[in-house]
Amino acid sequence: MAFDWIDAAGAARRRAGLVRTLRPRPADSALLDLAGNDYLGLARHPEVTQGAAEAAGRWGAGATGSRLVTGSTELHAQLERELAEFCGFEAALVLSSGYTANLAAVTALTAAGTLVVSDAGNHASLIDGCRLSRARTEVVPHADPAAVRTALAGHHGRALAVTDSVFSVDGDAAPLPALADACRTRDAALLVDDAHGLGVLGDGGRGALRAAGLAGDADVVATVTLSKSLGSQGGAVLGPARVVEHLVNTARSFIFDTGLAPAAAGGALAALRLLRREPHRPARVREVARDLHARLTAAGLTAVRPDAAVISVRAPSPEAAVRWAADCRAAGLAVGCFRPPSVPDGISRLRLTARADLTDTQIATAARTIVATAPVV
Amino acid sequence: MAFDWIDAAGAARRRAGLVRTLRPRPADSALLDLAGNDYLGLARHPEVTQGAAEAAGRWGAGATGSRLVTGSTELHAQLERELAEFCGFEAALVLSSGYTANLAAVTALTAAGTLVVSDAGNHASLIDGCRLSRARTEVVPHADPAAVRTALAGHHGRALAVTDSVFSVDGDAAPLPALADACRTRDAALLVDDAHGLGVLGDGGRGALRAAGLAGDADVVATVTLSKSLGSQGGAVLGPARVVEHLVNTARSFIFDTGLAPAAAGGALAALRLLRREPHRPARVREVARDLHARLTAAGLTAVRPDAAVISVRAPSPEAAVRWAADCRAAGLAVGCFRPPSVPDGISRLRLTARADLTDTQIATAARTIVATAPVV
Repeated sequence: MAFDWIDAAGAARRRAGLVRTLRPRPADSALLDLAGNDYLGLARHPEVTQGAAEAAGRWGAGATGSRLVTGSTELHAQLERELAEFCGFEAALVLSSGYTANLAAVTALTAAGTLVVSDAGNHASLIDGCRLSRARTEVVPHADPAAVRTALAGHHGRALAVTDSVFSVDGDAAPLPALADACRTRDAALLVDDAHGLGVLGDGGRGALRAAGLAGDADVVATVTLSKSLGSQGGAVLGPARVVEHLVNTARSFIFDTGLAPAAAGGALAALRLLRREPHRPARVREVARDLHARLTAAGLTAVRPDAAVISVRAPSPEAAVRWAADCRAAGLAVGCFRPPSVPDGISRLRLTARADLTDTQIATAARTIVATAPVV
Repeated sequence: MAFDWIDAAGAARRRAGLVRTLRPRPADSALLDLAGNDYLGLARHPEVTQGAAEAAGRWGAGATGSRLVTGSTELHAQLERELAEFCGFEAALVLSSGYTANLAAVTALTAAGTLVVSDAGNHASLIDGCRLSRARTEVVPHADPAAVRTALAGHHGRALAVTDSVFSVDGDAAPLPALADACRTRDAALLVDDAHGLGVLGDGGRGALRAAGLAGDADVVATVTLSKSLGSQGGAVLGPARVVEHLVNTARSFIFDTGLAPAAAGGALAALRLLRREPHRPARVREVARDLHARLTAAGLTAVRPDAAVISVRAPSPEAAVRWAADCRAAGLAVGCFRPPSVPDGISRLRLTARADLTDTQIATAARTIVATAPVV
């Protein structure tokens, strides 16, 4: 039969202890959540859910078509204006996910003959963008501006350096100013996925590009998600107006996709406005992350110092990581468990995320649980 | 400067008359809409928008994480169960768009050494899936089962034939039974994008696979969108349980994407239940399409006989198509205008979509407007 090979692939996964299963959660879970990416605690904020609900009522449950046909509403345009203005870019383009935003940016800004210089730790969506593009991709060591400089020096013609601002697995930040310098010596463009920076880094949560003084620069493009700090769904590309216009005309993952649902646009817009009004939330989430990290390392665990909201705690093996996460869950704490093949370096870890709305008591409880359930190495 | 090349690309587009711009629409447009893909008129149905709004309130504005971490709710699981049951498949997997569903299905069901046989008229998302996969793709002439048979005969090892059920540009249907026969002679799998069939074709709108007697077969996988007949946002892969389990474990556009927003899942679920309760809607949309086609061809226009809800009307040039669509708009009618490079054959056309909730008067008005504004050839 056509799909018999799948059984062998599944058996191999089971032998390697790498089977993933979906675990649908109830609406009101008793678990303390340190696994999601709702960094500012806005996904269930009444203003945000009401923004989503009202948008569904006023604009419909769906956008009804591609953004270029019937799928652009004035709500999308408003979100794009406010997002660009908040982050300090000339223009923004909203897509249905951060994944499709990265595909759009990488493929539309490259062509046959372009060199893409890609950090070894980049998110899968940037990697898939490189794979989809007609460009040649050179993967450089993680967070290494000198390697980017060397890669660019060996190329004549158009070039694009691509990096996460905050790496999704370990939570460390990219050296953005040095990367921009490396690009500028060769007239290369810089594309930064700020999915984990928006709402967490920069003045009032304006993102890593703003923090690095690069937002709005003529040779810099950022992508963001609406599904992490903004508690909703979708993604966006931010950059010079001519870049956005070029994407509208050429980015296949934008053109051939239904526009973002009005509810998601409305939820993200409500969250953005709330963030502008409550600029203390980003500082709080960073404080929570540092506090968690300090407690875990004080207890002897190995964890990467968080540059934003993500804390990565090393596990000795995939099996130990799975057991550790399950023990946390049994003790009332949801944590992420990242292991091969979805980690670039093959290292298994717990992935914890800070939230601005965690109380000091919740932080202490979470840290205690993680330490108490840690595998004996 | 890094992006100066964009100005030249833009100038070339302007010279060729191929500039696309976003035209955000108001919540209450006076235009009669024959451009969107809301085939059953459900996007603004009160039950559907309320389903979306209630889901946002109960589950939050966003899913908060990847489906494998925190992004699977019981609402997603319920939608997957009901969607699979309705369409007659063993299992379903919901993704954030039809585009990412197609990327997921094509990439996860192929590997280096697999042959993908792809119809020349396939949607861009299937093509991008082929580009992303490690497989070798052979593009075969449009709707040509004999060509599929020949391509498969020349290959030893795993193979997958890929087709739209209803082609998005011309609205014609694929010869699914003959394609399935061609696949079965070589133990190849068949992947069908039923984006334009769900809600329109098959018993009560159960889709083109159901109409062809192929739904639920062990070697058949379908993809659908939640953003057309179901009036919401998102996509899904339908197939044998082992296929869905394999996608959960390996499909990058599923694993590395935030889960579909609860409002979109809730809207789609409400629409699906409404469709089950009101099975006359699919027959009506087909009737509207046939009626429109008959009126246009009776007036001397060249249009493809619609197999589902899409009617394609030929225009003499890209410029004429743009002008025609603009003249329709000025007369109160929104129609789609498809032209290079987003049509596979380079032919410009108006693309009209039937809706189940159009009245006979609206159909007559729409046809009159299109005929009255038609370019003189």
